[in-house]
Amino acid sequence: MASSTPEQNRSPEVRRDPLNNRWVIFSPARAKRPSDFKSKSPQNASSNSSSSCPFCIGNEHECAPEIFRVPTDPKSDWKLRIIENLYPALSRAVEKDGDPRCETSCLGYSDRVVKGFGFHDVVIETPVHSVQLSDLHPREVGDVLLAYKKRIEQIQEYEFIKYVQVFKNHGASAGASMSHSHSQILALPVIPPTVSTRLCSTKEFYDQTGKCSLCEVQPKDLLIDEATHFVSIVPFAAMFPFEIWIIPRDHSSHFYELDSEKAIDLGGLLKLMLRKLAVQLNNPPFNFMIQTSPLQVTDSQQLVYTHWFLQIVPQLTGVGGFEMGTGCYINPVFPEDAAKVLREVNIS
Amino acid sequence: MASSTPEQNRSPEVRRDPLNNRWVIFSPARAKRPSDFKSKSPQNASSNSSSSCPFCIGNEHECAPEIFRVPTDPKSDWKLRIIENLYPALSRAVEKDGDPRCETSCLGYSDRVVKGFGFHDVVIETPVHSVQLSDLHPREVGDVLLAYKKRIEQIQEYEFIKYVQVFKNHGASAGASMSHSHSQILALPVIPPTVSTRLCSTKEFYDQTGKCSLCEVQPKDLLIDEATHFVSIVPFAAMFPFEIWIIPRDHSSHFYELDSEKAIDLGGLLKLMLRKLAVQLNNPPFNFMIQTSPLQVTDSQQLVYTHWFLQIVPQLTGVGGFEMGTGCYINPVFPEDAAKVLREVNIS
Ligand SMILES: Nc1ncnc2c1ncn2[C@@H]1O[C@H](COP(=O)(O)OP(=O)(O)O[C@H]2O[C@H](CO)[C@@H](O)[C@H](O)[C@H]2O)[C@@H](O)[C@H]1O
Ligand SMILES: Nc1ncnc2c1ncn2[C@@H]1O[C@H](COP(=O)(O)OP(=O)(O)O[C@H]2O[C@H](CO)[C@@H](O)[C@H](O)[C@H]2O)[C@@H](O)[C@H]1O
Repeated sequence: MASSTPEQNRSPEVRRDPLNNRWVIFSPARAKRPSDFKSKSPQNASSNSSSSCPFCIGNEHECAPEIFRVPTDPKSDWKLRIIENLYPALSRAVEKDGDPRCETSCLGYSDRVVKGFGFHDVVIETPVHSVQLSDLHPREVGDVLLAYKKRIEQIQEYEFIKYVQVFKNHGASAGASMSHSHSQILALPVIPPTVSTRLCSTKEFYDQTGKCSLCEVQPKDLLIDEATHFVSIVPFAAMFPFEIWIIPRDHSSHFYELDSEKAIDLGGLLKLMLRKLAVQLNNPPFNFMIQTSPLQVTDSQQLVYTHWFLQIVPQLTGVGGFEMGTGCYINPVFPEDAAKVLREVNIS
Repeated sequence: MASSTPEQNRSPEVRRDPLNNRWVIFSPARAKRPSDFKSKSPQNASSNSSSSCPFCIGNEHECAPEIFRVPTDPKSDWKLRIIENLYPALSRAVEKDGDPRCETSCLGYSDRVVKGFGFHDVVIETPVHSVQLSDLHPREVGDVLLAYKKRIEQIQEYEFIKYVQVFKNHGASAGASMSHSHSQILALPVIPPTVSTRLCSTKEFYDQTGKCSLCEVQPKDLLIDEATHFVSIVPFAAMFPFEIWIIPRDHSSHFYELDSEKAIDLGGLLKLMLRKLAVQLNNPPFNFMIQTSPLQVTDSQQLVYTHWFLQIVPQLTGVGGFEMGTGCYINPVFPEDAAKVLREVNIS
């Protein structure tokens, strides 16, 4: 672990995250174990230069079709572009009318198969190869967030799309295959398991207390930073060391409710968190995910008990058979220690 | 992907695994995408020689205490050993009497915290550094499986232990920090989420049909190989390419019900599967996990609808923000194609 904490000798604790109903083992002792494999891949592998990168300005012809750009004038130089993914996980071309279930599944499990209709887009966050998201001005990060919003609003027109996952992979060990700064939007014909679980847990909390669980979060020792409309915390049962959640202060069930003013505010806090992680953890690979609500509201109270947030996970440890088998995680850093470290990082 | 399939141009499909209630996107197109990161870590990094490996015979003094060895005579040369993990995720030392909940949690969330009491052991599968599990004779693989069984039966005496996860990490990209062939046993004070989900799904199937869902599996196109007491299949909604499940033919809810005859039979089939993966996929890193039932039976019918199995996952692709955010997976290889390939691999 890059940073040692004052509490390395605490007893292990097992904590449950009420939102995703997952157990996490906090075990400082694990941070000290050795490895006899001689060096894993460098955290950030070197990458191609801009001449051969399809995402760079000037190479637009090497990309799958553009959906829109910012500024929108197709003749102007762009600051960011949303394009189709050339190797999409789901297909725009799959017949989308009628029953979305695959009646023709070759194995006869028709109740367990849905046609692979969906959208898979790439958001190119900057025209310049060497620029990273955290290098942008808060307003420009806000423009990326507003582009996500605009694209989700377009996708919302398709009734078979149930959920839209926005995510970013940065660095090879965080899964990225392209080094040019980008994120992805994947629009799904099903509600993913993390979202169903979250709906259940937050509904249960609401039924018991009449309140939204994320509105009720008391950051206290878990607080990292605050902006006008957002707070950043380390969650009480963080699955990964130095995991961060950025939560809107005011109740909001869908990410697409973000307006221009809040986008700049969130852009600033997201930039600050990414810079803090880079400084404290030596520029680690990371992922971020926007955790929001299903497009269609199925329960009249759903809007009251669901609250979106942005989850940031630096990739420091990797996982193994234990996590794969159980869905539990082992985190060597207690969240209150990680929050203290991140609160105190000095960004000049 | 190491192996191309006859169906690379099929439309994507989204399948739900009824056991773990998880959606998987099958998308052959994804296999073709390029990467501009210059080479990830080699699949199997080079590793230390036996002189400095604490798991090698002769270096027992460098290890945490032994729990037992096979053969059991402490003065004989051992063929396998179970030892305490020197960097345990959970602690044998945590006070285990009274309420397992942490009343003293510093953050005041006492309903979400359990003391970190548990057992974390390492199974050293062979005394020799260069020998892998799949190099052993079926009877010797069976001895490793029977050692897991014996240790689980010892742990069962502790009423605060709710579930025992047996797992193996092989190769650095599968999470292994030690290269000497080994597996791990982690005994938990909580029931992990994958197990609760499986209990719910199999109970629901039982309530609807009066049958155990794994007894009802019709391997058909998904079959890889058969032994006397076990079958190996690629699951219908495999999360990972070339994922394999080995399932007992006769109903059995707990792995510890394995007897000596079945252990040799399973040992042979496990060895065959590991060799097939090694030949077909160029010796990939892999994990295996024993998926069994909670130690304590809480529902009188639980023994009827739960059925253990062994899950093997070669690590070929890695994951990113999409999987982390949604709990859905993207698998470029259709299970029926993977099963066909594995069925036909020639092991000389
Ligand atoms: N010329 C071009 N035009 C348009 N699009 C192009 C293109 N060239 C490449 N692309 C697309 O650009 C995307 C780049 O995405 P990332 O680098 O974030 O990771 P990728 O999706 O490859 O996989 C990571 O993220 C996914 C989802 O989390 C995981 O399944 C996977 O294991 C992990 O490696 C790819 O999806 C690729 O298909
Ligand atoms: N001298 C000694 N005596 C006794 N024990 C010793 C020892 N030296 C080392 N050990 C233990 O041996 C074990 C070897 O285990 P593995 O190589 O399977 O992976 P590890 O547990 O490190 O982490 C992988 O598996 C876990 C669980 O899946 C993931 O959390 C993690 O990210 C992943 O890298 C370690 O747990 C280590 O603590």
